[in-house]
Amino acid sequence: MPRGYAIGRADEATNPDSARATLSEFLSTFMFVFAAEGSLLALNKMYGGDHGLSAPGLVLVALAHALSLFAAVASSLNVSGGHINPAVTFGTLVAGRVSLVRALFYWVAQLLGAVVAALLLRLATDGMRPVGFTVAAGVGNMNALLMEIVLTFGLVYTVFATAIDHKRGTLGTIAPLAIAFIVGANILVEILI
Amino acid sequence: MPRGYAIGRADEATNPDSARATLSEFLSTFMFVFAAEGSLLALNKMYGGDHGLSAPGLVLVALAHALSLFAAVASSLNVSGGHINPAVTFGTLVAGRVSLVRALFYWVAQLLGAVVAALLLRLATDGMRPVGFTVAAGVGNMNALLMEIVLTFGLVYTVFATAIDHKRGTLGTIAPLAIAFIVGANILVEILI
Amino acid sequence: MPRGYAIGRADEATNPDSARATLSEFLSTFMFVFAAEGSLLALNKMYGGDHGLSAPGLVLVALAHALSLFAAVASSLNVSGGHINPAVTFGTLVAGRVSLVRALFYWVAQLLGAVVAALLLRLATDGMRPVGFTVAAGVGNMNALLMEIVLTFGLVYTVFATAIDHKRGTLGTIAPLAIAFIVGANILVEILI
Amino acid sequence: MPRGYAIGRADEATNPDSARATLSEFLSTFMFVFAAEGSLLALNKMYGGDHGLSAPGLVLVALAHALSLFAAVASSLNVSGGHINPAVTFGTLVAGRVSLVRALFYWVAQLLGAVVAALLLRLATDGMRPVGFTVAAGVGNMNALLMEIVLTFGLVYTVFATAIDHKRGTLGTIAPLAIAFIVGANILVEILI
Repeated sequence: MPRGYAIGRADEATNPDSARATLSEFLSTFMFVFAAEGSLLALNKMYGGDHGLSAPGLVLVALAHALSLFAAVASSLNVSGGHINPAVTFGTLVAGRVSLVRALFYWVAQLLGAVVAALLLRLATDGMRPVGFTVAAGVGNMNALLMEIVLTFGLVYTVFATAIDHKRGTLGTIAPLAIAFIVGANILVEILI
Repeated sequence: MPRGYAIGRADEATNPDSARATLSEFLSTFMFVFAAEGSLLALNKMYGGDHGLSAPGLVLVALAHALSLFAAVASSLNVSGGHINPAVTFGTLVAGRVSLVRALFYWVAQLLGAVVAALLLRLATDGMRPVGFTVAAGVGNMNALLMEIVLTFGLVYTVFATAIDHKRGTLGTIAPLAIAFIVGANILVEILI
Repeated sequence: MPRGYAIGRADEATNPDSARATLSEFLSTFMFVFAAEGSLLALNKMYGGDHGLSAPGLVLVALAHALSLFAAVASSLNVSGGHINPAVTFGTLVAGRVSLVRALFYWVAQLLGAVVAALLLRLATDGMRPVGFTVAAGVGNMNALLMEIVLTFGLVYTVFATAIDHKRGTLGTIAPLAIAFIVGANILVEILI
Repeated sequence: MPRGYAIGRADEATNPDSARATLSEFLSTFMFVFAAEGSLLALNKMYGGDHGLSAPGLVLVALAHALSLFAAVASSLNVSGGHINPAVTFGTLVAGRVSLVRALFYWVAQLLGAVVAALLLRLATDGMRPVGFTVAAGVGNMNALLMEIVLTFGLVYTVFATAIDHKRGTLGTIAPLAIAFIVGANILVEILI
């Protein structure tokens, strides 16, 4: 990848490479969000909407995130770089690894993928509503913000250390595994807020 | 692999390569179905036939599917391509990666492997009957169909992105992991229907 | 590895390669049995000796087996071939991949490793006795034998397909993963007997 | 890496390679301790401080350790060697793979990383105190010491067998996986003391 800041090459919006990468981000994000959000709906269906999370429920949700994120990153790694997450695209933009046009394309693709996944989940479950995240009672917003900053830092650090700074030849399996596993581990901690 | 549509070479039904690949599909599918279906029977034995699935039970079944599918795909990847699933063979047929004769061989091998696995499970458990899938009460058939289409799409997309479109040299571990993990994640969502 | 049947080279009992491989089998088997058997003792401690296994307990035991077996096979793969299990050594002996002398060495090392692990577990827990396997009430011995044959076949098939028949260069991570994962999946099914 | 004992090169305290490796140890240890210790706090939050561990709780904690340790080792493997744990740094020092100065740097970085992680966890949870380890009632200190010796031996053996004695080219994914998995398995056994 070229290094340094750039708006984008003149043909970036139309050349086939760019379109293929954007499609790859869309499909992979869709697949990830469908399984990850679907696992939350599955918990709701089994235990009802008001249940507090239990250890087995948390393990289930963490597994759904880690397993599907591995498949999503592995499927798009060699085409789009396997960002999936807008924060990762933002990090690579700041580091000068993708052009602004490419980053915008990725963000639209990621958001669209998530929206379509939520929509199809609703159709497939005959109207279950996606589960939103709220801060637990008794936890301040500043605490929650700090937690999110730390967890997102861990993810972006892992992405840079395994998927971007590595020499290409060896990143094969290690990058998607590290990314999927740190997200799975973070799910287990995120319940604290 | 040759690309393009073909009925099959004249000797495909008899040459040793084709026989070895078909045997590999049979053995790997057998090993996968034995463990995957066996885990459902194990749940039945522990909690009785009428239990609704719980989070730990779902994690158990998803793990059994993901772990054994990885071993099955890894064992047959370099011999038959590691399809295991008739839908994957269909996808590769449509994409012109296998000939019609080869696809027919694989389908028979996959079905036979699953039948023999179910039979041996019944013998080993002194007559427990395989667990069938039914659509949960209150879920329409169209919802269930949509869910299955989305989940099967995710699997076939992962197979094509990691096991088929990759250059051979790097696919080693990443393809069976991605395939096994997306199936494991999908199990956690499939309970919604 | 040489292929074909052999009693063993004259110096096999004394040369450093053979001693290193045998030590590797001993240490890896010790590490695996300590964690695998230790997880059974941990269940006993948490739920008492008479508990029937539950889904979370079964997941715990399967994870302990799969995770520690991966580490054990990965640690000895390039030194001894990573057999760990006497059945695998027997299979490679029948296939003519190891000499009889080497196989005998491995068997002694594997048994010693398991004995020392059980001993240290007993010392570390101040006298908890290792958990033995018994056939569940209502399951015939022939059923249990059939189950064990099928599960051992799956393991040996996976070992041959990923660790032995592969060309050396690519087996890196895939062989220990496939072996560890099929054993983990089989634990989830073994409760049926 | 140079082999043999050494205090350290004259410029080791200031050259950029050494600083980068030390930073890498700090960040990776921080990320690992945040997720691992955070999972213990999450259990406390869900079940209260006095709960004995249950099978699902133990699986949750083992997963958090294994998943985050993989990401931590994978992220620092090519920069610092991926020690994370002071015992591993001590082992490599004794084996003459790192100089004394480098080892001291790593130890400070590892301790700092753990302290900062505990501090940020406390801030993010508005004052939950880190969970300490105590020996369970009825378990002698000598038993606990023996258990810790055996488990630490397993970890150091795995590190040497997969991350250090291997030839560089193949260690890619296998070393962090083996290290993370043996730590995850050991968590499941450690409850015995």
